[in-house]
Amino acid sequence: MPDLRPVLYVNGLFLLMLGVAMQVPVLVDANYHNPDWQVFLAASLASIFAGGGLVLSTRGYDTRLEMRQAFLLTVSTWLVLPAFGALPFVFSELDLGYTEAFFEAMSGLTTTGATVIVGLDHAPPGILIWRSLLQWLGGIGIIVMAVAVMPMLQVGGMQLFRLESSDTSDKIVPRVTEYIGALAALYVGLTALCAVALGLAGLSAFDAVAHAMTTIATGGFSTSDASVGMFGSASVDIIVTLFMIVGSLPFVLYIQAARGRPLLLWRDDQVRLFLLLVVVLVVMLATWLWMTRDFTLPSALRFTAFNVVSVMTGTGYATADYNAWGSFAVAVFFVIMFIGGCAGSTSCGIKIFRFHVLVALTRAQIRRLFQPHGVFVPRYNGRPLPESVGGSVMSFLFLFLVIFLLLTLVLVATGLDFVTAISGAGSALANVGPGLGDIIGPAGNYQSLPATAKWFLALGMLLGRLELFTVLVLLTPGFWRA
Amino acid sequence: MPDLRPVLYVNGLFLLMLGVAMQVPVLVDANYHNPDWQVFLAASLASIFAGGGLVLSTRGYDTRLEMRQAFLLTVSTWLVLPAFGALPFVFSELDLGYTEAFFEAMSGLTTTGATVIVGLDHAPPGILIWRSLLQWLGGIGIIVMAVAVMPMLQVGGMQLFRLESSDTSDKIVPRVTEYIGALAALYVGLTALCAVALGLAGLSAFDAVAHAMTTIATGGFSTSDASVGMFGSASVDIIVTLFMIVGSLPFVLYIQAARGRPLLLWRDDQVRLFLLLVVVLVVMLATWLWMTRDFTLPSALRFTAFNVVSVMTGTGYATADYNAWGSFAVAVFFVIMFIGGCAGSTSCGIKIFRFHVLVALTRAQIRRLFQPHGVFVPRYNGRPLPESVGGSVMSFLFLFLVIFLLLTLVLVATGLDFVTAISGAGSALANVGPGLGDIIGPAGNYQSLPATAKWFLALGMLLGRLELFTVLVLLTPGFWRA
Repeated sequence: MPDLRPVLYVNGLFLLMLGVAMQVPVLVDANYHNPDWQVFLAASLASIFAGGGLVLSTRGYDTRLEMRQAFLLTVSTWLVLPAFGALPFVFSELDLGYTEAFFEAMSGLTTTGATVIVGLDHAPPGILIWRSLLQWLGGIGIIVMAVAVMPMLQVGGMQLFRLESSDTSDKIVPRVTEYIGALAALYVGLTALCAVALGLAGLSAFDAVAHAMTTIATGGFSTSDASVGMFGSASVDIIVTLFMIVGSLPFVLYIQAARGRPLLLWRDDQVRLFLLLVVVLVVMLATWLWMTRDFTLPSALRFTAFNVVSVMTGTGYATADYNAWGSFAVAVFFVIMFIGGCAGSTSCGIKIFRFHVLVALTRAQIRRLFQPHGVFVPRYNGRPLPESVGGSVMSFLFLFLVIFLLLTLVLVATGLDFVTAISGAGSALANVGPGLGDIIGPAGNYQSLPATAKWFLALGMLLGRLELFTVLVLLTPGFWRA
Repeated sequence: MPDLRPVLYVNGLFLLMLGVAMQVPVLVDANYHNPDWQVFLAASLASIFAGGGLVLSTRGYDTRLEMRQAFLLTVSTWLVLPAFGALPFVFSELDLGYTEAFFEAMSGLTTTGATVIVGLDHAPPGILIWRSLLQWLGGIGIIVMAVAVMPMLQVGGMQLFRLESSDTSDKIVPRVTEYIGALAALYVGLTALCAVALGLAGLSAFDAVAHAMTTIATGGFSTSDASVGMFGSASVDIIVTLFMIVGSLPFVLYIQAARGRPLLLWRDDQVRLFLLLVVVLVVMLATWLWMTRDFTLPSALRFTAFNVVSVMTGTGYATADYNAWGSFAVAVFFVIMFIGGCAGSTSCGIKIFRFHVLVALTRAQIRRLFQPHGVFVPRYNGRPLPESVGGSVMSFLFLFLVIFLLLTLVLVATGLDFVTAISGAGSALANVGPGLGDIIGPAGNYQSLPATAKWFLALGMLLGRLELFTVLVLLTPGFWRA
């Protein structure tokens, strides 16, 4: 049994930060003269009190974590923060039950974007900004984890992204902590840039900031039930599309680009495959829409680009009910929701680098079949792929499939229809947001689902966000021994 | 470019055998005074003529095949035989187009069991027995291939089943050819046993033989549109269920059991996992049916056992429209159709041994996460799993997924609805037969699908039956070089 005190200590620190973040909606609601500011103040104090208590009672122990403590810390943080982040939803005038509130908070922090709230357009501004903040914090949280924690934990092939190893060739060994500061500054800067662009495109300051935060986080919470479709503006669509893409590329490469190595971004296998996929999918689907439906070519391109990028990156905004685009479009959206973006970005899903690794391994397999004595070395970013990465990535795919199918079965057992269950399971695991069909599709929401289904979907979001292994390792009996 | 003459020569031999097999429906139709006997005679002569021509024009060359010729032979056989096996369907009073006839023949030889024929109950007896024969021949064909060809080709982890390697420990090195004779005898014997049992249970000799052939082949063609449900007999259901299971276990182990080593069968990892899965799934689904629907426990057990085994083994008979059992049952049937039976049986799907390998690899991965310096060796049947098998199996899973999703997309593009497309794609790749929904579900058939969809489904059956890699390797440019 590992020492839990350092784990509790860091959880306490995060809780303190969450409590401080809740002061933002306090100020927003106070500014709009909405009585909900008291709700946020109460939730903020509760979080600060609990976090402070944890910190005070467990400080002074060694905080250099061993492996198992790192796993425990990662999972417990992603449970404790939504547990407290849910409080404002319970106390506010929305009057959600705790199940719904936890679902909404988990959906926020994991940058999923599935919502149980109907009537966003008339919701208190504090609640709206709190939903955006949850996604925004979840977004930077996952970027930092992808740089500082995941490579160490070696989950699902993330060991490919050790900063040290990729930089030793240039004799630069930057400290991870230095990167974290730069990443945070970059994240704030990109969010501000997006907000300004949206403001120039005609959005109110409030809507611009709220959407900038959930765009860069590829989260997908909006301030309207109609999502970004409410604005009905081509320039807004284009700005959001671009920044969803920005949020889906590896943030570390932006920093390296800013430090004078822009080619690293362009030559990166993940970035190339991601952009290629976006272009191919958008052109294919737009052509199909243009030829079979009542769309002009420019509007077909605009609507497909937005919704394909939104679903593929796991953002989950909608500007159209693509359920009504026919079964070909529905199938395309079902498939691309699993793709995701790049590792080291805010997006989720199976992730581009895993497809690259899987294709490289499978090609080597096929060539070996008819040239049994040939030597075929799968490569990633020009370097031979370490043996351990191949195994990790393939196990990830298998686990993803198994969990996806089990989650689908559990969801139908709670009474959901097949399409809602299978698309809901995929959407939760890939942190997308909307599913397919009339209930949870882009025009619907998760409010009417049974409570059990909501808890399992929240679990799915957690599993997907933490790359499955991080959570499952805690369920191994061997983990707790010795 | 490999020498094609030996490939054509063996294809000619197989075609001769097909032509001879067509004499069976000639005799059956003649016996029932159905004028269709002329149709089969014509088709038989055409096959014998074409086969004989191939044999005569290419004989005398070295028939020891190199690797690439073995791949070409395997794929071309599985294209040439359905191409000629389709002729009776075109010429007969059913008057099918060639697309439908090829679909039916491919569905037969791959033991899929999807049908485009409506009105089986009034179809000429020759046609009915020909459909059974196609599946029966396909069944023994795939068993022989699994023993003699697939381990050599090393596709998708099938190298695990090299006879030599598994027997050297006992210093018995049987020749593959000796096994083939024993396998054929066993296959005939089991079919006769099944036919006798069905006869005793009240079926006419014709129905008993026709169903025995498609049961042991886990094929699923029936002599009635209502499939085995037509007989409405519990004893028939039980006999068919048992023999579908018999058809899904590794046939080589039966021979080893008959030679005094029955424990090999019981201790085999595939057999154990397969039987465990059947029991768990049947108990789970029967309990659910019993508690939520209007079923007594015995009838719930009878109907679930039959239909679960039928879909999981890829047989594809139906005794009930499980579409009407609610979305939980539908989801279960969707998932289990991918499982399949054991390697070296007549069943298809992803196959039990692959799940065993995937689980073993993933467990080792997870344990390595928190014990980075531990050594975890995944095992299969008590022996350490060769490195190459792990990679092959994992690539197989990835390819299966990619092809499944692409096939789904192609099918929706031909105009099918989402559920028909996704379940049809899975059903074809896993050689099951029926899909889900009203059109191709257990109560429907494939007749109304567009021609393009039928061709792609037939391609899916071929890919699934030949373990994907065998076909895909031919599409690699490198295969044809030098």
